Amino acid sequence: MSSSYGENIRVTVFGQSHSPAIGVTIEGIPAGEKLDREALARFLARRAPGRNSYSTARREADEPEFLCGLVGDAFCGAPVTAVIRNTDIRSADYDNLKNTPRPGHADYTASVKYGGFQDSAGGGHFSGRLTAPLCIAGGICLQLLSREGIHVFARIAAIGNICDRGKLTSSLADKAFPVVDDEQGEKMQALIAEKKAEGDSVGGIVECVATGLPAGLGDPMFGGIENRIAQIVFGIPAVKGLEFGAGFRAAEMTGSACNDPFIMDNGIIRTVSNNAGGILGGITNGMPVTFRAAFKPTPSIAKPQRSVDLQEKTETMITVSGRHDPCIVPRAVPVTEAAAAIALYDSLLARRRELNG
Amino acid sequence: MSSSYGENIRVTVFGQSHSPAIGVTIEGIPAGEKLDREALARFLARRAPGRNSYSTARREADEPEFLCGLVGDAFCGAPVTAVIRNTDIRSADYDNLKNTPRPGHADYTASVKYGGFQDSAGGGHFSGRLTAPLCIAGGICLQLLSREGIHVFARIAAIGNICDRGKLTSSLADKAFPVVDDEQGEKMQALIAEKKAEGDSVGGIVECVATGLPAGLGDPMFGGIENRIAQIVFGIPAVKGLEFGAGFRAAEMTGSACNDPFIMDNGIIRTVSNNAGGILGGITNGMPVTFRAAFKPTPSIAKPQRSVDLQEKTETMITVSGRHDPCIVPRAVPVTEAAAAIALYDSLLARRRELNG
Amino acid sequence: MSSSYGENIRVTVFGQSHSPAIGVTIEGIPAGEKLDREALARFLARRAPGRNSYSTARREADEPEFLCGLVGDAFCGAPVTAVIRNTDIRSADYDNLKNTPRPGHADYTASVKYGGFQDSAGGGHFSGRLTAPLCIAGGICLQLLSREGIHVFARIAAIGNICDRGKLTSSLADKAFPVVDDEQGEKMQALIAEKKAEGDSVGGIVECVATGLPAGLGDPMFGGIENRIAQIVFGIPAVKGLEFGAGFRAAEMTGSACNDPFIMDNGIIRTVSNNAGGILGGITNGMPVTFRAAFKPTPSIAKPQRSVDLQEKTETMITVSGRHDPCIVPRAVPVTEAAAAIALYDSLLARRRELNG
Amino acid sequence: MSSSYGENIRVTVFGQSHSPAIGVTIEGIPAGEKLDREALARFLARRAPGRNSYSTARREADEPEFLCGLVGDAFCGAPVTAVIRNTDIRSADYDNLKNTPRPGHADYTASVKYGGFQDSAGGGHFSGRLTAPLCIAGGICLQLLSREGIHVFARIAAIGNICDRGKLTSSLADKAFPVVDDEQGEKMQALIAEKKAEGDSVGGIVECVATGLPAGLGDPMFGGIENRIAQIVFGIPAVKGLEFGAGFRAAEMTGSACNDPFIMDNGIIRTVSNNAGGILGGITNGMPVTFRAAFKPTPSIAKPQRSVDLQEKTETMITVSGRHDPCIVPRAVPVTEAAAAIALYDSLLARRRELNG
Repeated sequence: MSSSYGENIRVTVFGQSHSPAIGVTIEGIPAGEKLDREALARFLARRAPGRNSYSTARREADEPEFLCGLVGDAFCGAPVTAVIRNTDIRSADYDNLKNTPRPGHADYTASVKYGGFQDSAGGGHFSGRLTAPLCIAGGICLQLLSREGIHVFARIAAIGNICDRGKLTSSLADKAFPVVDDEQGEKMQALIAEKKAEGDSVGGIVECVATGLPAGLGDPMFGGIENRIAQIVFGIPAVKGLEFGAGFRAAEMTGSACNDPFIMDNGIIRTVSNNAGGILGGITNGMPVTFRAAFKPTPSIAKPQRSVDLQEKTETMITVSGRHDPCIVPRAVPVTEAAAAIALYDSLLARRRELNG
Repeated sequence: MSSSYGENIRVTVFGQSHSPAIGVTIEGIPAGEKLDREALARFLARRAPGRNSYSTARREADEPEFLCGLVGDAFCGAPVTAVIRNTDIRSADYDNLKNTPRPGHADYTASVKYGGFQDSAGGGHFSGRLTAPLCIAGGICLQLLSREGIHVFARIAAIGNICDRGKLTSSLADKAFPVVDDEQGEKMQALIAEKKAEGDSVGGIVECVATGLPAGLGDPMFGGIENRIAQIVFGIPAVKGLEFGAGFRAAEMTGSACNDPFIMDNGIIRTVSNNAGGILGGITNGMPVTFRAAFKPTPSIAKPQRSVDLQEKTETMITVSGRHDPCIVPRAVPVTEAAAAIALYDSLLARRRELNG
Repeated sequence: MSSSYGENIRVTVFGQSHSPAIGVTIEGIPAGEKLDREALARFLARRAPGRNSYSTARREADEPEFLCGLVGDAFCGAPVTAVIRNTDIRSADYDNLKNTPRPGHADYTASVKYGGFQDSAGGGHFSGRLTAPLCIAGGICLQLLSREGIHVFARIAAIGNICDRGKLTSSLADKAFPVVDDEQGEKMQALIAEKKAEGDSVGGIVECVATGLPAGLGDPMFGGIENRIAQIVFGIPAVKGLEFGAGFRAAEMTGSACNDPFIMDNGIIRTVSNNAGGILGGITNGMPVTFRAAFKPTPSIAKPQRSVDLQEKTETMITVSGRHDPCIVPRAVPVTEAAAAIALYDSLLARRRELNG
Repeated sequence: MSSSYGENIRVTVFGQSHSPAIGVTIEGIPAGEKLDREALARFLARRAPGRNSYSTARREADEPEFLCGLVGDAFCGAPVTAVIRNTDIRSADYDNLKNTPRPGHADYTASVKYGGFQDSAGGGHFSGRLTAPLCIAGGICLQLLSREGIHVFARIAAIGNICDRGKLTSSLADKAFPVVDDEQGEKMQALIAEKKAEGDSVGGIVECVATGLPAGLGDPMFGGIENRIAQIVFGIPAVKGLEFGAGFRAAEMTGSACNDPFIMDNGIIRTVSNNAGGILGGITNGMPVTFRAAFKPTPSIAKPQRSVDLQEKTETMITVSGRHDPCIVPRAVPVTEAAAAIALYDSLLARRRELNG
């Protein structure tokens, strides 16, 4: 079903932007693993709204309550369910939007799909708010991975046409604005502020790296690491593109330039370059897994836009009020880490089955 | 399992490059649908090797034998299995490669994953040859979709840094080199010939469009049309990037430029632009679904490359002989159509369940 | 994953006997369907403990809170999650059982499987209490089925060696002790009271019938209606046997006696007898679907029993205190209906896809 | 999809009784395992028709051709596909049955489900002949299990009302008529001969035991060993009932009699009795897993039976010619072993993931 992901662990996200609660159920976490509640809280805080001038003014504690799956702080093998109450609900903000779909949002397609019965308040189940429970699951997977020496971290690679510089080699979790080159980060923030002032928004790119992965994760064909990461990353609202390693640049390269030569490095097989993004034939080769995800600009903008009245079947104009980030890319950084961590931990569990053969 | 795709139809691809046969099983084709064998043969011919100067010299009829699932030419509801015999096998070509993984190939990762028991001849199950059975399944889905007014077609959007011009609006199946602008196509072919002469290869981009899709296909979150297409397209060997609609360009845009305004067009809701690639919230909006897939250059090149001896754990050089396309992008065009058709037909069947509610 | 069931709707049950809450997530309920909260409450009351002298003294409101998936009383297409708080927890009752597995319970196998990290209080995730969220999902499916003229109802067919008499033709939901022949019901209740007085327990059989099902539900082989019902019914704690139609009696019959002859009945194809239990080749034939499930006696008994100390690896005796039904069969009646309803509604949704072809 | 089974290995059965071929694809067999072709041939011979006076006269070599998944005799990690050609086809035998469904068969339900497009010859995909490819997959799993000290064996427990005597403790593969008590076996064979002479058929029961299973296989709720075995065993044509351990007899027992007391046996935890059939809470407890499956009598009988004309919507009589076993129970013995082996091997692979944590 579409709100579930994974085969060896399974993450099911539930809730709507303005329902009593949102949450997540995670099946398959190995019994005996410990939950580090503080580390999870710190991780969730990175995604939480209201942290700075350019993110939505909606403020909610977003503190998860664990309903089951734990004995003390140890996972007990049973499904884990955590919920977050929706306390700061202002559905009235959306009353004028029932019949007038916001361009760039799922309002229209949800209306067609669910025959008008969808929860339209705040985007319902399509809301970016649902990335909060995804981050609960992802935050847990990040903990589990790091215990095996696997680290997943991301950065803002670009906002609009301003790109970060330098190479991403370790976590930027301590930075309020996670870029390698802070000077570029300043320019990005200025661009966001500018677009906000214009009642507009802007898109960007998140780059994600996973280090410490053993070779041998993933499967051929439709179960490759690329396929698995793609299946979850395209579930993050606003993602419209995804590339691994050299990605679209590889299309311009020759084989002799794109192929990563194998070398021996202190007895370990490595590659000189990493155009493959750590994945050959869908399977990890021991090099860092790298990918970039393109986020479109926040579709909610203050500027008037052309739309239609679904009932009257006439054209109309719409102005979107409510609280919205002029750029969701900064908050998408931990969400992307979460998504990657879920996909990779799922793949790691699958690999265990083979190794124990 | 990793060689299977789909929930409402399920396509399972089997075989290795040099096993007695390769094939596909398709579960879930509606009983009573007819197989157009000639149309399927024409479609498979577009992917077949040996059609021109720049594709591999391996020549095989690649004519599928249907073992079951049909009564005459009508699908009967039972699983459909079709096989292609591997007649032109020269495993000796690969003997020197057993312990020396080819850069850019799955040789090394397969060796790790399967503990040395993988079928290394010709890439085994990772071979591009496995796109032949994928095309049997996709060719059938293309037939089924076209009966409902849905058409899927693709083009070579770029070879290296040479891009096609013009808009893709209909099938180019009749063209030996499927580009809109034949002048650009000439340049692309010259580039391929040049790289072949150099013992090198080159990558490119395939663009795919699906028209006639009703609004309402796909699901939120992990079951979106993007997710489903990504899960299958990243299963095509050499794909390293995928973008929908404006894709990575959307990351540079403002919301006011990227949002597709809704309009009424003769009583039908449409959008002025199609930066969303026909997909909002994972669900089709009635506009054409468009995507672009980046293919890395063929990793098999004649130039000597650095590699390692897996047994001796030493560095060595490798020269890949055998028969290989200097650019797989032309043959990837029907494969991409096939993959998209499978994903979209699977989604169409899912939608039927809802409509009959 | 093991706590989830279904392909077209998916029901995921979470919680432990003594965790903060238990609950269920249901994906795939068609948008626009209405929830009848009162009917659901009445249904859940049939399973609730503490209703009479022979059921556990544990009393909890068991009123579900719906966290999401609804707009008012209408399902909105998003996943539905409902939770029940565990208010009446007495984990201390189980303190002496940590290292001494109760015979007939999952204590020992859970300990092996989860390496000692399982939630042992009250049976954890294995507790019969988890049938409450199953009944939330099943109660909703019963409502959805009944709107299509499909009715599912069950009875106590036997307690120990005392069997009900007469044919089950309609719901016994209004009866506190759901048997057709109340005289036999009296004897059964006397037997339960007798075993309770002895500090013992007793098993029994639940028979379930579904009427109004169209012909054509289910699939060949592993997707037959028998397979689907079996997969969920064996998930009810204590079920050790399952038979459809004539079931084990069919093994003693001749073909000429067992085959159900086809007849025309006012233009409708029916069978004279129903030894097939309404299922041929895994697919419904339009006759009532009938099955019987065997429940072993409640393993929690007051009598001293032989067990082992898991840490000391020595033999010991155990006396199970706590609150337990001397016979779970009466409360298993609505649980069986719930399980059957989920399986059949899932199958009905699958059938829609075909019919809309 | 309904013709596939399993999560850690997946078995997909394809073919119709009279299609060019039938076969099976098995995904997930660990690379490096060896195929013992002779042992497989011996196993398949036990199911093959034409071995004795009471089985169908249809004679086919039923020798599988492996199309892929092997390098020599070693599984290579890729999907394994094996096919059996249908050489002895006499579809004309079934010409008179197109519109007249045979009582007890899937003819009518298949016709409804597939709208008349089903392959009706010989029962199509519903034919007992499809148990041949199931036995290929099961025969392989039996080999893989036996290498880990796990043995699965079955017997004829009853034909009609004649029951075998004694306890089943080891394989009866060497017996042409697999019963423990040959005297009872003689009576069973006489009964089968008698029913055959009458143009009738008779049902029976198969009992299956698996020894050597470690404790800890299986999962709670819907992923229990009972659920998994049930899902595949009800896929064997003619199975109408299934019970584990004491099964339906448990319904008549008291808790003090039914609970299996734990004891220490040379440092190993065992139970005195095995009414649980080796399964508690869905998870193996280290005792033998035992189950019994009830087979209805072969529905194909020579006696005239009442049926209907599907086109004319009138009543008619039908006499089934063709070649049919008067009792399928003897040949069902290896099929039941095969089904159990697939379910248990799938569960064993799942367990590896946990143990390697």
